[in-house]
Amino acid sequence: MSDKRTEIADLGEFGLIDRIKSNFSLQNLTSLKGIGDDAAVIGIGKENLLVSTDMLIEGPHFDLSYVPLQHLGYKAVAVNVSDIAAMNGKPEQIVISLGLSNRFSLEAVDALYDGIRAACQNYKVDLVGGDTTSSPSGLVISITVIGRVENEKTVLRSGAKVNDIICVTGDLGAAFMGLQILEREKQVFQSNPEMQPDLEKYEYLVGRQLKPEARMDIVYELEEQNIVPTSMIDISDGLASELFHLGKNSNVGIKIFEDKIPIDSMAFETAVEFKIDPITTALNGGEDYELLFTINPSDFEKIKNHPDIHFIGHTHDNPNQNVMISKQGTVVPLLAQGWRHF
Amino acid sequence: MSDKRTEIADLGEFGLIDRIKSNFSLQNLTSLKGIGDDAAVIGIGKENLLVSTDMLIEGPHFDLSYVPLQHLGYKAVAVNVSDIAAMNGKPEQIVISLGLSNRFSLEAVDALYDGIRAACQNYKVDLVGGDTTSSPSGLVISITVIGRVENEKTVLRSGAKVNDIICVTGDLGAAFMGLQILEREKQVFQSNPEMQPDLEKYEYLVGRQLKPEARMDIVYELEEQNIVPTSMIDISDGLASELFHLGKNSNVGIKIFEDKIPIDSMAFETAVEFKIDPITTALNGGEDYELLFTINPSDFEKIKNHPDIHFIGHTHDNPNQNVMISKQGTVVPLLAQGWRHF
Repeated sequence: MSDKRTEIADLGEFGLIDRIKSNFSLQNLTSLKGIGDDAAVIGIGKENLLVSTDMLIEGPHFDLSYVPLQHLGYKAVAVNVSDIAAMNGKPEQIVISLGLSNRFSLEAVDALYDGIRAACQNYKVDLVGGDTTSSPSGLVISITVIGRVENEKTVLRSGAKVNDIICVTGDLGAAFMGLQILEREKQVFQSNPEMQPDLEKYEYLVGRQLKPEARMDIVYELEEQNIVPTSMIDISDGLASELFHLGKNSNVGIKIFEDKIPIDSMAFETAVEFKIDPITTALNGGEDYELLFTINPSDFEKIKNHPDIHFIGHTHDNPNQNVMISKQGTVVPLLAQGWRHF
Repeated sequence: MSDKRTEIADLGEFGLIDRIKSNFSLQNLTSLKGIGDDAAVIGIGKENLLVSTDMLIEGPHFDLSYVPLQHLGYKAVAVNVSDIAAMNGKPEQIVISLGLSNRFSLEAVDALYDGIRAACQNYKVDLVGGDTTSSPSGLVISITVIGRVENEKTVLRSGAKVNDIICVTGDLGAAFMGLQILEREKQVFQSNPEMQPDLEKYEYLVGRQLKPEARMDIVYELEEQNIVPTSMIDISDGLASELFHLGKNSNVGIKIFEDKIPIDSMAFETAVEFKIDPITTALNGGEDYELLFTINPSDFEKIKNHPDIHFIGHTHDNPNQNVMISKQGTVVPLLAQGWRHF
């Protein structure tokens, strides 16, 4: 190693992933898809196995002063299941590694596993293994999920074609606003512990932050309608970033319309209250864990009346032009953002 | 959650694993074997998929003041591969999650991945995914490995029969003595930074600690000899603990002979130098990553002259009696130990 020091922040999340990817080649025939999608794809015959992993660290990812351990356990599983949903697969197994400091009692670990178990039951996933170890400070949760999908139904980020319809489920930005509410109430409580947090009004937003759901319901509904999306990704970093990934991997351009982007009314009002442009919460907020996917226009009829799928734009043939048409009709370039932890 | 507080240390590692296991049941038919072996077993037809995960945290698991990052990357992969070897399987894919504090430069991350890549090439494993995130302090490495084995060649901890021969590969206790050397040199260096560490004499021991190898060579050799062990486990916590697991899971008793336990001469001498009984380093030292397995006596002829497989005892029909016959001929009870981190 030379004495040169380069900060990881200079490279950014996506730069670091690209660097790792370029330094590793695949040698096993069963490794069908490596780094660069929501999950890796492993060939097992007529089906593919999907593998994804996520690490949550106390501090950058969660604050136990307002996140109940049960919710944290549930969320840790849900965000992994969401990666399997994003490949159009069904989750079957998880393994969990925990790093625990001696601050955590057995009762605390039980509460965490209560949430994990609730998520396992809801998503029909089996906990099949793990590792529990001590951590010098704070809680670390690392989950790997394994799912399955038929070969021809496996959906990558790279399959979108020109003129596909861009769809998004649920609503966006609420999880981000929920986080702002929780952070504000924490400040209030810290400056005056007599004050009780007033979260009732914001229940939906706080719930979206603390207990997100993976959209497995959408995966099953698309299957019933006999629709295989041409590309798909889950929205963890914000719509703009995920659109950028779909466009780049599929080598198409993105055009979306601001007035089509689903934002919950409470999220909208709260964003205004916080002096944040509501569209920014949807584009860059993150942690919504909704599904973003593209369909062939011929599939549109089958789901055009679905109450929870929104058609926000379409792909086009210029991969260098990712834009949003604002409510005023102006053309706004879309910019990708990864994490900014470092 | 009630206000009661129970320390995790009161339960211990194995108590905690049992507790988690008893609170989760398996619901998917593909989940053939869950918590409680070296790897989970997932059915994919004529073959089984093996999944194992390990988390390494700076502090409890490694000290970067004497562990080079390249070695750490190599070891992190090797210890996971060792779990697949312990199921008689072959590793094919890994996913890696990293938690990095801003203390780590890109060059440091590169060094870590250099070691990971070397291990991937050596064990023919593909890195297919992961997660990189920030950590408030220190380095966290979580690896999940996926391997494969034919159904009828899958070896669990539970298959040993009465009168099977107990075999162990390589030598035991050297990794533990290597750690003692490194810790001693660190103390010397801290009290007098002018002193250069004198590790040459102890090269073998230090190498066993810093760069262990998974015994995939043994898995391939047993296959060539057409031997399927009746039970198997890798030695991560020390021979006594692993013997206890095999006995308990297979419902047999264990009888081993002290004079058959392989201890390297340098490990022996160094243990004496440290005033530690050499047999203790083998029984309780840990981190050897050798394989402990049982064979049907009819297979003995095929491997009796193998230079690196040692026959240390046999199973018997009293599961409550796990003993070692000392060099003096006395009967010593074997006690299991898990980690004592908490």
